[in-house]
Amino acid sequence: MKRWLALGAVAVVAVVAASHLPGCAWTAKVRATGPAAQKVYVKPGEYDTYYAFLSGGHSGQVFVYGMPSCRHITTIPVFTPEPARGYGIDEESKALLGGYTWGDAHHPGLSETNGDYDGRWLFINDLPHARIARIDLSDFTTREIFTVPNVSAAHACPFPTPNTEYVFAASRFSAPVPFTKPVKLENYKTDFNGVIAGVKVSKEGHMSTGFEILTPPFDWDLVDAGKGPSDGWAFFTCYNSEEAYDSLEVKASQHEMDYIAAVNWRVAQQAVDAGKAHTIGGAPVLQPKDVPGMIYLFPVPKSPHGVDVDPSGQYICASGKLQAEVSVFSFAKMQQAIAARRFDGQQGGIPVLRYTDVLEARVPVGLGPLHTQFDGKGYAYTSLFLDSQIAKWKLGPPWNVVDKIDVYYSIGHLMASEGDTRHPTGDYVVALDKLSKDRYLAVGPSHPEGAQLIDVRGPKMELLYDFPTYPEPHYGQMIKADKLHPMKIYPLDQNKNPWATKRAEDARIEKHGHRVDAYLIAVRSHFTPDVVRVTAGDTVYFHVTNVEQDEDITHGFGILRSNLDMQVEPGETKTIRWLAGAPGIVPFYCSNFCSALHQEMQGYIEVQPSGAPVARLQRPSPARVAEVAALMQHR
Amino acid sequence: MKRWLALGAVAVVAVVAASHLPGCAWTAKVRATGPAAQKVYVKPGEYDTYYAFLSGGHSGQVFVYGMPSCRHITTIPVFTPEPARGYGIDEESKALLGGYTWGDAHHPGLSETNGDYDGRWLFINDLPHARIARIDLSDFTTREIFTVPNVSAAHACPFPTPNTEYVFAASRFSAPVPFTKPVKLENYKTDFNGVIAGVKVSKEGHMSTGFEILTPPFDWDLVDAGKGPSDGWAFFTCYNSEEAYDSLEVKASQHEMDYIAAVNWRVAQQAVDAGKAHTIGGAPVLQPKDVPGMIYLFPVPKSPHGVDVDPSGQYICASGKLQAEVSVFSFAKMQQAIAARRFDGQQGGIPVLRYTDVLEARVPVGLGPLHTQFDGKGYAYTSLFLDSQIAKWKLGPPWNVVDKIDVYYSIGHLMASEGDTRHPTGDYVVALDKLSKDRYLAVGPSHPEGAQLIDVRGPKMELLYDFPTYPEPHYGQMIKADKLHPMKIYPLDQNKNPWATKRAEDARIEKHGHRVDAYLIAVRSHFTPDVVRVTAGDTVYFHVTNVEQDEDITHGFGILRSNLDMQVEPGETKTIRWLAGAPGIVPFYCSNFCSALHQEMQGYIEVQPSGAPVARLQRPSPARVAEVAALMQHR
Repeated sequence: MKRWLALGAVAVVAVVAASHLPGCAWTAKVRATGPAAQKVYVKPGEYDTYYAFLSGGHSGQVFVYGMPSCRHITTIPVFTPEPARGYGIDEESKALLGGYTWGDAHHPGLSETNGDYDGRWLFINDLPHARIARIDLSDFTTREIFTVPNVSAAHACPFPTPNTEYVFAASRFSAPVPFTKPVKLENYKTDFNGVIAGVKVSKEGHMSTGFEILTPPFDWDLVDAGKGPSDGWAFFTCYNSEEAYDSLEVKASQHEMDYIAAVNWRVAQQAVDAGKAHTIGGAPVLQPKDVPGMIYLFPVPKSPHGVDVDPSGQYICASGKLQAEVSVFSFAKMQQAIAARRFDGQQGGIPVLRYTDVLEARVPVGLGPLHTQFDGKGYAYTSLFLDSQIAKWKLGPPWNVVDKIDVYYSIGHLMASEGDTRHPTGDYVVALDKLSKDRYLAVGPSHPEGAQLIDVRGPKMELLYDFPTYPEPHYGQMIKADKLHPMKIYPLDQNKNPWATKRAEDARIEKHGHRVDAYLIAVRSHFTPDVVRVTAGDTVYFHVTNVEQDEDITHGFGILRSNLDMQVEPGETKTIRWLAGAPGIVPFYCSNFCSALHQEMQGYIEVQPSGAPVARLQRPSPARVAEVAALMQHR
Repeated sequence: MKRWLALGAVAVVAVVAASHLPGCAWTAKVRATGPAAQKVYVKPGEYDTYYAFLSGGHSGQVFVYGMPSCRHITTIPVFTPEPARGYGIDEESKALLGGYTWGDAHHPGLSETNGDYDGRWLFINDLPHARIARIDLSDFTTREIFTVPNVSAAHACPFPTPNTEYVFAASRFSAPVPFTKPVKLENYKTDFNGVIAGVKVSKEGHMSTGFEILTPPFDWDLVDAGKGPSDGWAFFTCYNSEEAYDSLEVKASQHEMDYIAAVNWRVAQQAVDAGKAHTIGGAPVLQPKDVPGMIYLFPVPKSPHGVDVDPSGQYICASGKLQAEVSVFSFAKMQQAIAARRFDGQQGGIPVLRYTDVLEARVPVGLGPLHTQFDGKGYAYTSLFLDSQIAKWKLGPPWNVVDKIDVYYSIGHLMASEGDTRHPTGDYVVALDKLSKDRYLAVGPSHPEGAQLIDVRGPKMELLYDFPTYPEPHYGQMIKADKLHPMKIYPLDQNKNPWATKRAEDARIEKHGHRVDAYLIAVRSHFTPDVVRVTAGDTVYFHVTNVEQDEDITHGFGILRSNLDMQVEPGETKTIRWLAGAPGIVPFYCSNFCSALHQEMQGYIEVQPSGAPVARLQRPSPARVAEVAALMQHR
């Protein structure tokens, strides 16, 4: 506790000091609201110029914002069922979730080609279940969820490589490997391990475990992939190099230095391919001592969080969250030290380089530096959690802070426009504040998070706008809007779903024993058929095909007094599984307003007593079939 | 289908006609963006002037927006589990949901005193499960969810009375009453019923069934409570007075007139109190024929949706969605016709009044009129779904349209500032558009909904801003910000939770047989205790008390490889139930970024083999207890 109070005292001093910096004249600028108001206003009918993808934290989802308007355009359900989209409810997306109903999504990672965002996919991690999801940006839909074996709490994840060969994951809470190994907490230092994993991404985006590396039981925190000269490497920060398992607040802050691990992922993959791995939990696991040249450690002052490779790929920027400066490391110097084998011992079989051998510069940014982004114009921006500021500093000699801006409050990560690429655009930085306190209309003890749009086009940072976010964006990435061209409907003629019903005359209900397959067509404003007769105890699969081909004509399919509701987009087929309980009448309806006669878009399930003579094939009337056929022709 | 095409043709004619109206000059105004940009810009650190509560549709939640900035401030979880808030996961909120994981929330209803929003509660319906939730606006948290017996799809719901004596619910999809009554669909007209329910609200906000009324099997659509002279009455629209059970798109649009039901809720309650009801499904159900003076029908042209009582309480405005005018009915004329017993027969024991006897005016607003709101300055605003416009018209002679504005696209309801009260403020109207199509950056086939802020302070409506919403706000209410004063923390000394741990020395783990109670204190940046030893097969209740008393210092409590994560606000205690599976190590952690040492806020569960000698009482070290005690003193 003493440490904590001491830290607080340092923070007060720093805030006072900061108020004398030139950057603190920002308040005067903000009061002249005209220009800022114009800069964030997107006229009705016009478009934002950037997409921003914010992680949804323990909501388990991804939030999509438009910039510079800061409008929340949509939420992409990823790890949590979401009735608004029917996600996790229809059979296909339910299977994708694998029984979990929660995730903790921290770091969105856009796929890259040659180190620039290419707009194909967005990866996002789930910390507690060590999963990585891939969202297809052609339809903004989660397509794959991959569980990384042996990793305990995937926080340093996914941060794609420059050509999306790999995404990464590493254990934040070290654990026995495998998890089922019988151990005692007291034997943490000997029986627990961290795991650093390289997850291969195929050309089609599919994930598989490329390699895993066993490390000492540190807490692996964040990662960034090298680029340019450092392409082929990945850099992981850790805290708790003290290897404590309790009272971490105190015990994990004893060392002056923790570590960055530099991993040569090509060497690691070659070692696996050469058969040097042991299989644990289905994954190829490497011991550092078995693979020279694969992994190195170098010190970084205390309890670092972010690790960020600059656009040129020359510099690795990290900083202890309990210090007041950024340590800039040189990739070239690291290579020289490795070549010269200048090691300061080893940790768990991993050679340790000397801080001073790898260090390029120390930049006195301020208190609580967490994360650094870049503008592509020679400057870096570091978030200062304790100072509640962003420091802008020169990336290169004289390595000095050139501007500061206050943020409200307690900034975690920040997000620069195309900030993780080789070519950041230098337009905006968004502060992802951990506390919003009094910045918005009060909504009870559960406050929104806060985010702030900052214009970085000029020499001084300018705060443009505050916008609240739902808990809890940890990180975000911002991509130029013209890089994404998502489809607006699913072409019906490309619908390959085996349960699709594409012709009016195929709409029907088939009953085989206690299994019923209802092949429904949805088109404004009717389900065909809209009367479904089953018997008690039947398992009914509703296969609903939305045959619309107009934009934004979604049909919902909800069943009363059930947990079943799905949303079917134009051209799409989805399946929902419903169990017929006691005999009775159960209505269903379109749950997504679709037309002037949307309210009339309903139907009834008649559940007859078990054994009642229900027809094995039920078809709509010929008149109804003709109507649907005509509607589809006029579509 | 012919009908549908015919309707389309009418729509085209109407749109062409509308373009010659004076209101259509709006585009020129919008292009001059300066003023609009200023009108919606809320400077960093300043506040919006209105709260807007938007229903979340099939997301099951309520969205809170600030106006005029149109920023989404937070989401209140109501009918759907929401890990972002831990809602539906901790034991208390899980019990509130009663096993359902989905709702379809249509109509927020703010509590009223003397016909004005009083800021105490927000009610919201769940259509498919016929439930009403009450959100306490002192902490923006769902406190109660009430299931209305016998109602099948509560769409006309909740729409509080002027002193919140009642909220209402009525069956949209008529059904057998009770639902278990053995019937055949073919006998819909004789064996199905609609139900209109009055749900009593106590002074403390608790809900109970006051009365239910059996009606013919119409589809009850919407309701509004009378006010002023019409206080004591509620008005319900229906469609499908044709009593069809299939192909409603065609069969339920045959009649030129459907109905409004006018219900005298005091007479209904008196009848129940006098013992005239039969108990069905636990609710007191009345037959109209048994209670004269309780319910009347009067015709309204075809397939009406909204029914809206004007601020004076004299007029009831409704309109068929398949016509081009609003019918304004006079409450005084209705009373006169009833007094004179001028009936045109009956329907299901309910006397039917004549359209012309009750009608005050017909206002030619345009095509597809759905819903009407008011500005308190003598004007009404009607949404036109087919025309994609809002018509502003004079409420009173000469009952003419004075302005129109285009909206994008296919508006459903609209929401005026304090629009459902006796004193609308006349500042803003928000269009809740059903289709957004091309108004925002594309996000795939699942489009956001669209909403638009319109300034109605001047003689002409002025479009200020487009903002996307998540599916699917059906209706909203907007209340002056200065009416709400939610708490910002929960005072720890008022925490009455029996599982609370308020003193450092009480933090402990108790094991009794296979039940473990872990009494944890959460305070920056530690759980105390942070090591929990249990045996395989134990049921572990984690009772976590957040002893912080600073604003916005939420602690999360998430358990790895489980579906358990809860959020505990300052001063609050929450309980989560976890089953200890196989022996092994399971980490837990704070899932809501809370401090500079948040990453260190973690702990371990050691699951020992069944029968291992685990201590029945586990306490943290005296040093740790002293530290927590000191932190609490400095709080």
